Amino acid sequence: MPQLTVALDMMGGDHGPSVTVPAAAQALSLLPDLNLVLFGLEAELSPWLRRFKLDSHSRVCVQYCSQQVGNEHKAAYALRHLTDSSMRNALDALASRRAHACVSAGNTGALMAMAMKTLNTLPGVDRPALITRMPQAGGGYALLLDVGANLCCGAEQLVQFALMGEQAARHILGISHPRIGLLNVGVEANKGNESVREAAQRLQQVEGLHYTGYVEGDELFSGRVDVIVCDGFVGNVALKTSEGVARLLLGQRQQRGFLSKMLMLWLKKRLSHLNPDQYNGASLIGLRASVVKSHGSAGSPAFLNAILQAVSEIEHDLPASIAHRFDTAPRDSHAR
Amino acid sequence: MPQLTVALDMMGGDHGPSVTVPAAAQALSLLPDLNLVLFGLEAELSPWLRRFKLDSHSRVCVQYCSQQVGNEHKAAYALRHLTDSSMRNALDALASRRAHACVSAGNTGALMAMAMKTLNTLPGVDRPALITRMPQAGGGYALLLDVGANLCCGAEQLVQFALMGEQAARHILGISHPRIGLLNVGVEANKGNESVREAAQRLQQVEGLHYTGYVEGDELFSGRVDVIVCDGFVGNVALKTSEGVARLLLGQRQQRGFLSKMLMLWLKKRLSHLNPDQYNGASLIGLRASVVKSHGSAGSPAFLNAILQAVSEIEHDLPASIAHRFDTAPRDSHAR
Repeated sequence: MPQLTVALDMMGGDHGPSVTVPAAAQALSLLPDLNLVLFGLEAELSPWLRRFKLDSHSRVCVQYCSQQVGNEHKAAYALRHLTDSSMRNALDALASRRAHACVSAGNTGALMAMAMKTLNTLPGVDRPALITRMPQAGGGYALLLDVGANLCCGAEQLVQFALMGEQAARHILGISHPRIGLLNVGVEANKGNESVREAAQRLQQVEGLHYTGYVEGDELFSGRVDVIVCDGFVGNVALKTSEGVARLLLGQRQQRGFLSKMLMLWLKKRLSHLNPDQYNGASLIGLRASVVKSHGSAGSPAFLNAILQAVSEIEHDLPASIAHRFDTAPRDSHAR
Repeated sequence: MPQLTVALDMMGGDHGPSVTVPAAAQALSLLPDLNLVLFGLEAELSPWLRRFKLDSHSRVCVQYCSQQVGNEHKAAYALRHLTDSSMRNALDALASRRAHACVSAGNTGALMAMAMKTLNTLPGVDRPALITRMPQAGGGYALLLDVGANLCCGAEQLVQFALMGEQAARHILGISHPRIGLLNVGVEANKGNESVREAAQRLQQVEGLHYTGYVEGDELFSGRVDVIVCDGFVGNVALKTSEGVARLLLGQRQQRGFLSKMLMLWLKKRLSHLNPDQYNGASLIGLRASVVKSHGSAGSPAFLNAILQAVSEIEHDLPASIAHRFDTAPRDSHAR
């Protein structure tokens, strides 16, 4: 079996194969070592594969299936009844080690439930977290987690997110001592809800962790911390809000004058690092293998980025380093 | 007693009198009918009042006090021990009807606790909500609540926020049938936590309310709804995140070339409606009088905007219209 194999759910997201196939083709041409296993419904997928010459590509294996997960499907339903879906088959390929990472733009709740079922969490991790990169004012990125996999989180979960985020920053961003912040409604010790305040107390006691205190929403892009920890409801809203502002500023309305058009082009180029199409790709971490969740509305460049992110996580073996961190900071010492 | 009197906490916020006094002076010169009652510590406030000739202004009444509320003070402490603070005295002026609205840039938690104690909530309202305007892509504004007064909210509270937001949109934005959305992590019915899902079910049954369903973070600026309802933790993070992105894009870094400088000037002008200094000013609504909370880091233009917002709420008598809405949609019918 080749070393670098990524399983792709070709049916997920708002656009399906019309987005996932061109992205897969481009990933293959960019990375000569990359192998792909593609999962999808034959009727919809095969015409796109032919069009992009992936139906007979030496580094592509296609596996057709009979179902797909929709955004309207509840996680429990998907888990029980959509066992031959493209999403489930892609995850099964990870579990059986046919592939080393998986990318899907489908329903987050279903992906989370299926990934927990097929892959299991790492020892000491209660639930996986969805983590994503946020562009920073001074250049570079910070990591934000959870951005939607766990809507209500207690203090213990937030502490686990901090440990997982620390390893992700080390291995994905290359920061040896990442600064960890807790997202809150103020920076003073008395601010926030009970979970956040208790998590703050515990994080101060975790050995070797560079916990810097609370951060507020306006500091998500300030470069002051490398990892921002929050529950999935708050993180999801913060992430999508920032995308909304960026889209608003990048101008969806048609510009009329020549000067305005030129200025908007300049602006788009200058702000490209804030364009959701560029920094798309959240990962479910805390599992025994890497699962990358692409934005549902992602276009081909964004889905390509998600594939490249999966490759990067395989190369850095993020699950192994998270396992090691939880092994050296056992639950009783980090949690109390 | 004059009709249009606003009480100002001159000590709140990061900058105190150096920001609040110039803003008060400008408000007086803009509005010939406006009267102000100013509360603060004599040693800090009086030099600024002299400098801006407010120490002997015919429409200004100054009341010195002995305490001020800091950001580090817990609400319970402030409520019990800071009874001669500028914040508390400004609220007391509302309770005794010496003033018709109040503005403070101080500690939100303390302001909320003191306002509930001195002013009481309107009948049917469990707790006040902090509401603010968000600029929209097509021009105009939407209202977002709660943005930080209530960190954990059940379904009943979210329903009450929707009814309060509806009246605020009617009277402050002048929209006769405002569209109400619930902030969530997805638009499908199965998305979100229990409070949000239960609130959605109840809102569909409120007579006369134009409830349009879930909205996600990236739609806060889309113009698709007029009122966006969420709990205070989520709303606070969303608001501050959008401010963070706007600041990032408006460029805190120095621009080097002449062309870049010119372009940033053009950009700042074009995007001025997204500048926190312009749309500053959240209101605590659901109380028997209007209390406007200015941003702690607000400069003079922003604090001036908060004063103008207080005047607008007096003119529209927002508390009376909220009371009327809760009277006609009694708790049992709107809540079940």
